[in-house]
Amino acid sequence: MSIITIERKVLEKNDEVARQNRALFADHGIFVLNMVSSPGAGKTSILERTLEELRDKLSIAVIEGDVQTDLDALRVAKYNVPAVQIVTSGGCHLEANLVREAISNLALDSIDLLIIENVGNLVCPSNYDLGEAMKVVVASTTEGDDKPLKYPAMFRNSSVLIINKIDLIPYIPCDLGVLKDNALRINPSLTVFEVSCTKKLGITPWCEWLLENTRQKPAS
Amino acid sequence: MSIITIERKVLEKNDEVARQNRALFADHGIFVLNMVSSPGAGKTSILERTLEELRDKLSIAVIEGDVQTDLDALRVAKYNVPAVQIVTSGGCHLEANLVREAISNLALDSIDLLIIENVGNLVCPSNYDLGEAMKVVVASTTEGDDKPLKYPAMFRNSSVLIINKIDLIPYIPCDLGVLKDNALRINPSLTVFEVSCTKKLGITPWCEWLLENTRQKPAS
Repeated sequence: MSIITIERKVLEKNDEVARQNRALFADHGIFVLNMVSSPGAGKTSILERTLEELRDKLSIAVIEGDVQTDLDALRVAKYNVPAVQIVTSGGCHLEANLVREAISNLALDSIDLLIIENVGNLVCPSNYDLGEAMKVVVASTTEGDDKPLKYPAMFRNSSVLIINKIDLIPYIPCDLGVLKDNALRINPSLTVFEVSCTKKLGITPWCEWLLENTRQKPAS
Repeated sequence: MSIITIERKVLEKNDEVARQNRALFADHGIFVLNMVSSPGAGKTSILERTLEELRDKLSIAVIEGDVQTDLDALRVAKYNVPAVQIVTSGGCHLEANLVREAISNLALDSIDLLIIENVGNLVCPSNYDLGEAMKVVVASTTEGDDKPLKYPAMFRNSSVLIINKIDLIPYIPCDLGVLKDNALRINPSLTVFEVSCTKKLGITPWCEWLLENTRQKPAS
């Protein structure tokens, strides 16, 4: 069926631009994360806690991807870091060419860490390489412990899993052990952090890991 | 750009099959809901509570759409209603032709109400008519009160909003009034229900509304 061919061409074209982005990030020594999750899992909240803890230690820039509105960009703007908003106007994921356009607004030589917050969607962004060093998937405890099994591609294609809203565990039918087991069954090499953004729990181990990995500047 | 044309053709083809599905549902007097939400908002839990309350009053069938696994279909199977599982194998939404195939497994003459549970995705399913009488969007309080503004198409294209997990309000930064205001700002004609599936709150008003609307058998 012709649609499949076209889809493959779209992905090949995206992958080519992603390779160019990745080379550009490597040239400038920038560590790049692509944060993905369902809507409302807490990507922006994790970003806020991360900026609070690391903005004096690293030069951080942010790209905000949203279907509509600049609400997240406004939240990030409070932290006085360079931020670029991409509104996809209905599009369900970011693509490498949108990121390429966004980074033309950033002074790349002065950035250590670039965090790209993708559109809230646990399916589509898994297929689109943006040129990042790694994908970080955020799972909220409130979504239930079965989500890694039901949306495996995102967990398979990510290097880090941040489990957010651990403070709500006493009130909800979610077994944290089962959630982790399910995620590691899909992808045994996931690095897992457990946090609560509202209660500010578990943020420091994640930020220490991020600081170390940014300073190592692994080949993006 | 050619991709846009192709996308339009895909949607036109889908809409044609959706029209055929809708005519078939009307012929058989079946009221059809298309349930949509983010992953983990509680579509399956609402379905379980609905089946508990209405299965003795209505003849109900279910179509379960999932990216992967039959976990939801297994949950529904416990209620002894006819259920068909569609696994999209990575696909981010259901399409009308998948539903047409699924209903060939159902005895349509004996069904009053068909509930289609879509893939967990607050973006893509909004564009795809399945032939339903209406879309029911489920929003979890834990996703935050800004989601209708950030993912407007789904709220605009739905007729009913079920706000789930209201029991968690005391523990989370979500203002129920703001959430409702935001949803009604996007779509003033939304019928809104507030429920907690785990605490079994608010299920009866929703089920009474559903019973009444199914018995009226409005033009599907």
